[in-house]
Amino acid sequence: MKLISFVRDGRVGFGAVVGGDAAPGVVDLGAALGGRHADLKALLAADGLGAAADALRGRAADFPLASVRLLPVIPEPGKIWCCGLNYGEHVRETNREVTEQPTFFLRVADSQVAHGEPMLRPPESVQFDYEAEIAVIIGKAGRRVSEADAGQYVAGYACYNDGSVRDWQRHTSQWVPGKNFWRTGGFGPWMVTADEIPFGTVMTLSTRLNGVEMQRATTEMMIHSIARQIAYVSTIAPLAPGDVIVTGTPGGVGARRTPPVWMKAGDVCEIEVDRIGVLRNPIADDA
Amino acid sequence: MKLISFVRDGRVGFGAVVGGDAAPGVVDLGAALGGRHADLKALLAADGLGAAADALRGRAADFPLASVRLLPVIPEPGKIWCCGLNYGEHVRETNREVTEQPTFFLRVADSQVAHGEPMLRPPESVQFDYEAEIAVIIGKAGRRVSEADAGQYVAGYACYNDGSVRDWQRHTSQWVPGKNFWRTGGFGPWMVTADEIPFGTVMTLSTRLNGVEMQRATTEMMIHSIARQIAYVSTIAPLAPGDVIVTGTPGGVGARRTPPVWMKAGDVCEIEVDRIGVLRNPIADDA
Repeated sequence: MKLISFVRDGRVGFGAVVGGDAAPGVVDLGAALGGRHADLKALLAADGLGAAADALRGRAADFPLASVRLLPVIPEPGKIWCCGLNYGEHVRETNREVTEQPTFFLRVADSQVAHGEPMLRPPESVQFDYEAEIAVIIGKAGRRVSEADAGQYVAGYACYNDGSVRDWQRHTSQWVPGKNFWRTGGFGPWMVTADEIPFGTVMTLSTRLNGVEMQRATTEMMIHSIARQIAYVSTIAPLAPGDVIVTGTPGGVGARRTPPVWMKAGDVCEIEVDRIGVLRNPIADDA
Repeated sequence: MKLISFVRDGRVGFGAVVGGDAAPGVVDLGAALGGRHADLKALLAADGLGAAADALRGRAADFPLASVRLLPVIPEPGKIWCCGLNYGEHVRETNREVTEQPTFFLRVADSQVAHGEPMLRPPESVQFDYEAEIAVIIGKAGRRVSEADAGQYVAGYACYNDGSVRDWQRHTSQWVPGKNFWRTGGFGPWMVTADEIPFGTVMTLSTRLNGVEMQRATTEMMIHSIARQIAYVSTIAPLAPGDVIVTGTPGGVGARRTPPVWMKAGDVCEIEVDRIGVLRNPIADDA
């Protein structure tokens, strides 16, 4: 299933994208499941993916995908863990060392935007950069999960653009400020459920800025695997349904090019992950 | 007013502490205000501090303070910004440099515990350290707030113990893992509203571990003032009612003593801030 969070006629909902690419439609899963779940996070918390799949069987779209305004896949995750320096080429281009433990920082929910919405460059900086990543969406509660069991905790996957304001990221040793500007991180277009992407499947992720490829790698090139990341963060704090783990970006970021490449109003940035799809965001100035 | 979040008879509520230290009581503000506000954060969002003060006038306690289980002052802040390296002695003891910009990282909500609840040392580490801090609770929405206007955005103040798992804080360059273990950060006992502590008032903060003073400083010793911190974080992201800014710790942390001092099960850690009160937490092992 391809699951989305959306707004339609002023009402927040969640659903599944059905039909072909030519005329994609949406099944309103909130309605189809009797209004029992407030949002996609609540569906996951209720272990409702099976019921969602049952509700979809033989059901036609309730309305066209084009008639909804998408929200970030999970609009209000309890936690957004972000893994840094997790591909060798990116570690090298930033002149850093590979660490024994994975590097994690946090994003806040309102730093996110949906597929199609503009990622906002703040007036305080011109150094607005892309980072292609795969987002893991957690499906059930857990703590101190082993790498062997990690796959059981994944509800699905989405594309993420970990938009970064580089000078603010480097104000001090801590990257959080440059990683949390309002509406700088793309998260979408949907969550592909884990039953369609067996845990450990090799995926390819890439970035195109105005159609030009800027990053490309496969998950085989990760330094710390998704299983390792789930084990690590779940040692720190409980996993909860709807938590997001953003799993790191490959080499090729704009900051490390000569000359640097920064995103600006009018640009279009696309993050593609095979088996998931394309997350597309225009860039605009934060007024 | 001294405002608290609590659980009583299995019901979550918020209220004001009234009466003297000998027999403190609680006015159930949720009930007194007609059940219009889900929690303390919602009261702030509704600009309800004036109505709360009106409701308290001439009203006796509804029940004794001892009859409630306290929650962290704001149980689910949208953001918990934490300022690091903000007192000169602490910068020096950690062998770091003063930076032009303030250093910020983030905590997640479930890393917090209330006054009286145990702060949990995880089995993965013995390096569990205290950090006395003053928490600022934001009262209204804002973005790119000037230092001159910053005081208008403060709803009140509380004590914070930014409990830190030092070896996990130093796994990589990013401190977030060591700052986010489950139930490691004390936040309480209550929020003293800003009308009782005029913005810019010099406050003294201190830590006692098992009754022995470990840290002491005044807010005059801050490198980046509270006004500057509000201006900085509100440039990155909107301020929202209930957001928390934890404003930095003085010198004297356990990690920098010879030999180091680590908190362990059976210890009691107290953070005192004059004009606010004492936040007291026993230390226990996370099972």
